[in-house]
Formats: sequence, structure tokens, C-alpha cells
Amino acid sequence: MADAPDRHARRREATRAKLVAATRTLIARQGADSTRIQEITDEADVGFGSFYNHFESKDAIVEAVLAETIAAQAAAIDALTAAIDDPAEVVAAAHRSFVRRARSDPDWGWLLLRLDMSHGVLRASLGPYAQSDLRVGVASGRLQVPDETIALYAMGGALLAVMRLVLDGAAPPDADVHHAEGVLRLLGLDRDEAHEVARRPLPTRPAPTPATPR
Amino acid sequence: MADAPDRHARRREATRAKLVAATRTLIARQGADSTRIQEITDEADVGFGSFYNHFESKDAIVEAVLAETIAAQAAAIDALTAAIDDPAEVVAAAHRSFVRRARSDPDWGWLLLRLDMSHGVLRASLGPYAQSDLRVGVASGRLQVPDETIALYAMGGALLAVMRLVLDGAAPPDADVHHAEGVLRLLGLDRDEAHEVARRPLPTRPAPTPATPR
Repeated sequence: MADAPDRHARRREATRAKLVAATRTLIARQGADSTRIQEITDEADVGFGSFYNHFESKDAIVEAVLAETIAAQAAAIDALTAAIDDPAEVVAAAHRSFVRRARSDPDWGWLLLRLDMSHGVLRASLGPYAQSDLRVGVASGRLQVPDETIALYAMGGALLAVMRLVLDGAAPPDADVHHAEGVLRLLGLDRDEAHEVARRPLPTRPAPTPATPR
Repeated sequence: MADAPDRHARRREATRAKLVAATRTLIARQGADSTRIQEITDEADVGFGSFYNHFESKDAIVEAVLAETIAAQAAAIDALTAAIDDPAEVVAAAHRSFVRRARSDPDWGWLLLRLDMSHGVLRASLGPYAQSDLRVGVASGRLQVPDETIALYAMGGALLAVMRLVLDGAAPPDADVHHAEGVLRLLGLDRDEAHEVARRPLPTRPAPTPATPR
């Protein structure tokens, strides 16, 4: 077995983490396309040259940010919904947690929106999770949609737009509930049922651990 | 009354139109942020300096493209839905026409997506039209939503996402119908009614005239 990392390795890891955190911040602020490596190293307060000890290119570090953000969010949603049996409630809880986190953590919200614009993050990375939840619900008969792919895109696009409304400070306080109610209607629940399921108390649990130091 | 424009004025107008058309093409291809004035004048095949005879800045020409694109689309939707009495059918026809045009005119579709990313076009410009249609439907009792703002954003975001699916070539042939069916459910129609209204024949009419020469 390897020993605990020595001081050099720890310092190396700390520099990498600073670079990733700086990239997260810059993408949230201005998008990946407009972010230059020089800005990343300035924001991280490390020398320009040391960037290349850790990443081959800007694309490589953006990919790292993407992978860590997605993995953390997927784990948080899984934890949140693990104890829920009703497939409709699982979808509602997932969507509500996105909308609520956009409000409580705007940097994270902007990061997700910017990453989606430049890399299609919700489609490529969270799409399979949403698809799996939808399929379970359709197989059980609880959910019913005319076309699965269209429903997935419509849900994802609606979620991004509502997150944006929240980030712009223009959303009503219970935006998460109203958005979930709309999604449940889209998935075939009737109005009364959508109203009820969207308002079930969310499972309580500790806040997710950020994937990278802030 | 002024005479018909003389040759100089016509030539001036033709140059302006070429610049606007070139900008449309470049925004659709690569987004407004990445487009430089030099590329616009190259694409339009006019001298770099003549740009400033027509526009003060890149932002000014992007605004012109935006205004013309929105005005043309709003007019097309108005014409399409003028003879429809059912507010639910008006919404369905509007959404279907967007999805169908994204398929038949991908340059236009990408233009709208890119403009929305950089300028929030659907929110700022088409939003009021969508809001007005929604309000008529809610006032008549035909449509019912838990929160109007959330419903508008959800519909707009869903539409953009489905248009993107179409532009990526991954949408089923009747994407417009399935998307409209989802929107109608979101607006409170029950499943059978949403199914029926989304499939009503679209009014037939001539294709909309492009706002700028191609």
C-alpha cells in the first residue's frame, strides 16, 4: 500500500484544486469561451507556467470542472431521492432541488447554465439520470408521455429557464414547487395530483459537499 | 412627398442589407460574441470602412438583426393564429410553427438559439407575445397554471430545447406535435384534450417572407 501523500504531492494537489476552483468561478462569471488560461492562473494566484503541470489545455480543465460538478450533483440527487418510492415524486424532488440550489448557490447555478450553453451539460451528463427516472415511471404506469425524448428535452429546457429566472432574481419564492407542478403535468399527472405531489415535503439531509474547495 | 429613392440611396440600402444578412449568417454559425466586424464585412463582400457608414458598433448591428428577426417571426405567428378561436390551439400552433421552422430553416433556428444565449431574445422579445396568449387563455378559463411567470419560462425553455434537438437532427419527425402536447398539459389541459388539440391541422398560408435578403 502507498503511504499518505508526501508534502510535495499534497502541494501539487492543492495547486490543482485551486486551478479547478478558479475555473469554476470564472466560467460562472463569464462563460468558458471567454475565459483564458492567464485569467485562471491569476484568479488561482499561481504562476502561469504551472497550469501546464496539471492540464494540457483550457478544454481539459473545463472538462474537469464539468465532470466534478456533474458527479457531485448526481450524487446529491441520488441521496435526496433514494428513499422515495413514487417515481413522480422522485422527478419532482430532483427538479425542486435544482431550482432551490440555484437560489442558495448562484455561482453553482450560473456555472451550470454556462456549461450547458457551451458544453450541453444537462443534455449530455444529467440527461441519462433524468431518462432513467422517467423510464422507471413510464414502466410502472405512473408517468405517461407521448414521446420520451421530447419530454426529456422539454423538462431539461424548462428547468434551465426557471433556474435562470431564479438567478435573475425574478422568480417567485416557491418557484421550485410551481416548476415541479408543471413538470408533473407534462409527465401526465392530472392537475390535482400534480399539485399535491409537487408540494410533498422534500427529504431533509445535509447540504452536498462542494466538489472543489471554494 | 419624397420621390422614390435615387440610385445612391438604393445602393446604400443594398449595402446595409448585405451587412445585416452577413451578420445573421455569422451569428447563426458561431454566435454574436465570437463574430468580429471584419468577418461581417468579409462575409458581406464590402469594404471594412463602409460598415461604419451604417452601424456604430457590432452591438448596433446585432440589435438590428435581433429586431428584424423578432418582428418577422411575431408577424408570422400573428398571421398563422389570427383565425383560431381556441386559446389552447393558438399556443399549440405558435409552438409548432417554431419547431417546424427550426427544421425547415436551420440557419434561422440556430440564429434564434444563439441570440437567446447572448441576448435573451425569447424572453425579452417574444415573451410578451407568449404572455398575452397565455393571459387570454387563463382569463377565459381554458388554460390554468399555478404561476404565470414560471409557466412562461418553462414553455420558452422547453421550446428552445426541443428546437435544439431538431437542429441536432435527433428529433422524431412529429416533434412539433409532441412538444405542443406537452405544453398543453403544462397549461392545464387533460391528457386526452392535449392529445387532440396538438394534432389539429395547422392553418395553411404562404411561408413567411425573410426579413433580410439571403
